[in-house]
Parts: sequence; structure tokens; C-alpha cells
Amino acid sequence: MPVRALWREGERLALIDQRLLPGRLKVLRLSRAADVAMAIRNMTVRGAPAIGVAAAYGMAIASKEKRYTVARAARLLGSTRPTAVDLFVGIERVRKAWAQGEDTFPAADRYRDEIVGECRQIGEAGAKLFKSHSKVLTHCNAGALATVEWGTALAPLRVAHDRGAELFVWVDETRPLLQGARLTAWELGRERIPYAVIVDNAAGHFMATGEVDSVIVGADRIARNGDFANKIGTYEKAVVAKENGIPFYVAAPWSTFDSRRPNGEAIPVEERRPEEVLSYAAKVTAPKNGRARNPAFDVTPNRFVTGFVTPDGVVTPRRLAKTFSARGGN
Amino acid sequence: MPVRALWREGERLALIDQRLLPGRLKVLRLSRAADVAMAIRNMTVRGAPAIGVAAAYGMAIASKEKRYTVARAARLLGSTRPTAVDLFVGIERVRKAWAQGEDTFPAADRYRDEIVGECRQIGEAGAKLFKSHSKVLTHCNAGALATVEWGTALAPLRVAHDRGAELFVWVDETRPLLQGARLTAWELGRERIPYAVIVDNAAGHFMATGEVDSVIVGADRIARNGDFANKIGTYEKAVVAKENGIPFYVAAPWSTFDSRRPNGEAIPVEERRPEEVLSYAAKVTAPKNGRARNPAFDVTPNRFVTGFVTPDGVVTPRRLAKTFSARGGN
Repeated sequence: MPVRALWREGERLALIDQRLLPGRLKVLRLSRAADVAMAIRNMTVRGAPAIGVAAAYGMAIASKEKRYTVARAARLLGSTRPTAVDLFVGIERVRKAWAQGEDTFPAADRYRDEIVGECRQIGEAGAKLFKSHSKVLTHCNAGALATVEWGTALAPLRVAHDRGAELFVWVDETRPLLQGARLTAWELGRERIPYAVIVDNAAGHFMATGEVDSVIVGADRIARNGDFANKIGTYEKAVVAKENGIPFYVAAPWSTFDSRRPNGEAIPVEERRPEEVLSYAAKVTAPKNGRARNPAFDVTPNRFVTGFVTPDGVVTPRRLAKTFSARGGN
Repeated sequence: MPVRALWREGERLALIDQRLLPGRLKVLRLSRAADVAMAIRNMTVRGAPAIGVAAAYGMAIASKEKRYTVARAARLLGSTRPTAVDLFVGIERVRKAWAQGEDTFPAADRYRDEIVGECRQIGEAGAKLFKSHSKVLTHCNAGALATVEWGTALAPLRVAHDRGAELFVWVDETRPLLQGARLTAWELGRERIPYAVIVDNAAGHFMATGEVDSVIVGADRIARNGDFANKIGTYEKAVVAKENGIPFYVAAPWSTFDSRRPNGEAIPVEERRPEEVLSYAAKVTAPKNGRARNPAFDVTPNRFVTGFVTPDGVVTPRRLAKTFSARGGN
């Protein structure tokens, strides 16, 4: 059965508690917008496209709760995480329907269907990049868990694998929350795509020793010029890939494209609690009262991107804005 | 009291169990060469200069145990870890004394004194690189714990701090075994040098946003042309530092210089157990039966090195071999 991060059950949002994977597969069922906001904030659900869809359902749920105005519900859900622009796109879709007196759950469903459809198209568009015996590196989790179904970075790998390509995936473990080791490895294992988890430190070593043919990652926000924000560490991988002449791809649906932002400079980078760095689970890994900094994302300039894998095909950073306009924007 | 990684007590080797820091400060006292070999292999003691001195004492202990020939003792201790060349230098110093019928413990003491003295000289030579209000990034632990006393990369920071320089140190946590978060943070905290631990993924972000003035690391083996092996992840930091125009320094005693190796290509890179990547402490962080790869070191080409901080001053990669010869080799 394919992995799904979340789905609707009547007027509730069901989602996998991603904090517990891979050890435990637990489904939460939420019927209050405040609970949806908390699930986004504490990363029960994470991944730019997935939190966009979760927020869309959060708006639909809020519209039934009576205690929210449209604006208050949008503020509640919009204040959860600042970097992924998809969050605001998802909120906006349902906000419009609600403000116009339309039914909100169908609006959230349409947004979900659009994201799932675009991820499937990304898979089709990108599969040709991964020929047989391809060794691919990915960072964080840009799989079904991050996007409802299919994934962004993992979608082309899924499609290529289904068509018989012999793939091998290097999975960056992705500290501090280990979305690579916990989630990407879990998804790839279910699909029987061969992989090895490596510490984030080892990606450069395998690139420099000829063990990586290409890199593909997701994104949390792409500016008009192709600068993009993604999970902390993405920038380092992009710089080292370029140094080694390795193609670097970014896969994302159009909801991740922020046409109003000219470049990456002003993309807000969320900084999370230092405790995520100073420990893992219950295990303290640094001195008592140790100090830490914890940016959750970084910004990678467009010159490190070989191509964006979009629902409308693989395009260079230079052609990204044009492709977006040609399809009529969001 | 300054930190010391190990010291002699009569005919025993006393050492801090570095696997337990920072939670617990426990001293082990070893009186058998086989136990010294195990302590090096399982990283009770680690850091290239420190394992060289530990191995020197291991040879001295073996010479008193009767059950070892000189050659067997050298093989036992030399088979523990392959990358740091200091290990073999330390063994060789005591092997010679033993083979010539000299007393072995004084030979080991002399080697220890030489390493401690060189580390102090590195501190003096490098301190001038770190002016007031300097923000410095370091990777892994190249402090007193890695070198008996003073440290290599940390020695110049200690001396600069003592002289009143206002430093701030970015500490890469250094997965998989977290020597940065556990050991470097502990050492800096004891010396009251301000720092913040960051996940290895975040180093590039802080470099790109102007928060890092320079980088300094230790080394496990430096080839004649200045290519060098160090803890996995060093190569990525070096590439990203160069991309951002940030000076990158490598601090090491002469025991780390391998004058017989022309370049980094043939430096053996130890690969350790995948379990170190798939878990931390008792906490499993990846799927059951998940696969992993675990190289412990990587090799950084000389073109990324601004200067080597040696006991004889700061020298460029090009002048390294000449400086080594000028002082008469090892």
C-alpha cells in the first residue's frame, strides 16, 4: 500500500504521527483547528506540501467550529511555521471559499487533489533523469510523508524504480530531527528501493569519491530567480555537488513557488529550540546548560541548481518564472 | 585545572573514558597492552595525537608483560585504527627503544612530552590568527582530549582567549559520535570560551550569512602535498568555506605529517560499524534492519587549506614539506 501522510475522515483530519516513525505507525484524528495548528508546529506533520494541505483542512475544520472568524483561523494556522510558503497557499485556498460562503471541505479536497496530482506529474517529469544504475543522494524527507502522496524528490525515483531502473539512494540522516534516517529510509524500504543512510557529514566524501551521480531534494520556498529554502544542510550539499560536477535537482509543486519574492535573501528562516540540537529523544548529547543554535532551513542560491523538476517538466532556474507564468500562476 | 586526556601512573596508563563525557568523568587505569589496544579501537581514547601517545604507552606496558615480542606488540597496537598516522609514529618511537634494550617508559614519556610541547607551540603560533571578536568554526574535537594537553585546533583559541581576545566558537556536533557536542563543548565550557553547538548541516548556513570569520580543524594524517584526512565532514566544511572566502586552517603536530605519502589519494579511510549511524546511544533512529555506511574520515585536497598551523609557525600547503625537512623530519 502506498504511503499517505494524511487524509480526510468526514470532518476530521487523519494523519500519521511522523515523530514516532519508524518505530511506531500511529494515526491521529483531529477535529479542532487548534490541534491541527499544534500538529504542524510540533512537526507531527511536516514537509512543505503536506503542511499546506494540513493547513487547508485546518481551515475547513475551523469553519465548522463557530469560535473562529476567517481571519482568526488564518492567523492561527499561518503562525505555526514561517518558511514553507505552501502553508500560506493552502490556507488561502480555503480562506477564499469560506469568505465567499462556499463549502470549505470540498475546497480543501480540491487543494489536496491538486498537490497529489502535481507530485505524480513531478514523478513522470523527473523519472528520465535517473537512468539505470544511478546513485542518487537526497537530503531530509521529500517523500509521500512530506507531500500527502508520491513525494517531490522521491516521486521521480519511485517512477524510475517502477519502470525497472536500478537505483541506489544515499540517504542523509538529516540532523537534528533525522527525517532522512527515520522517514526517507522507511519509505524507500517499503518500496524496496536500495539505500544506505549516511551521517550528513559523509555526503561530501561519497560525492568526491565518485559514488554519487546526482542529487535531488525538495524545497520549502522557491523565489522567482530560483534561490530556494530547504532543510538545513541543503546549501552545503549543493555547494559540494557543484564542486564535484554532480547535477543538483530541486523537485517541488507550484505551491512552493513564491512569485512575489524576487530572490532568496528575504526568505524567513525558522529557528527552532536549541534542545533539538543538544539532545536526541531522551538522550542528552551535550554538556548540561550547553548552548546551541538551531536554524531549521537554509537558502541555496540559484547558481547551484541544475534543474527544477516541476509538474510541467524539468526547467532551469532562468526559465522557472516564465514556466510558472505560462501556466497562469497559482 | 587544565584538561588532560591521559597520563602515566607508574607502569599503568590512566585515561579519561571519552565515551562517557560530558555526562560522566571516569578515569580508567590500564596495565595490559591488550586493554590499551581495545581503548584505542573502541574510542575510549581518540584524536590522532592522543592515540599516538596512548599507543606509545601501550608498547611500554607490553614490554613489561613478557608475552609479547616487539613485533607482536607493534602489530597489536598498530591494527587498532588505520587512518591517524600518529598511532604508528608513537608505536615506532617505543619500538626502537625496546628493540635496542633501552627502558621503554622513559621513551614513551619523551614522546608524550614532545607532543604536549608541540601542541603548546601550535597554540602560540596560531593565536595571532584569532583577533578580537573573532567567530571561529571547528569540527569534531581537536582539543586537549584529542592530544593529551592543549589541543591542536583548540590550542590557538585557548592562547588567544588567555590573552583577552573575544572569541565565539561554532561547534559542529560531529555525527555519528558527537565529539563536537560532547567533547569540544565540554572543553570550551570549562575554559569559559563562548560557543554554540550546531548540527553539522548548519555550518554552511552560518558561513553564508557572515557569521563565521575562520575555520580551524585538526588532522589525522597530512600528506606531503598538504592533502589531509580528518573526521568525516571536514571536506564539506572546507569546500563551503572556500566558496564563501573564509580562511580554513589545519592545526597539527609533526607526528601527523606523513612525509612518505605524496598526496591524499592513498590515505586509508577507516569505515566503522553502520550501527553508529543507525542509532545514538540506546536510541534506534532508523528502520529496523536499515542499511547504512559509516566512513569515519574524509580527505580534503590541499587547495582548500589557507594554512597549516604547525609547531614551527603557520605555513602554506606548498611550504609544508620544506618546513618539515628544515627541522630534520620526525
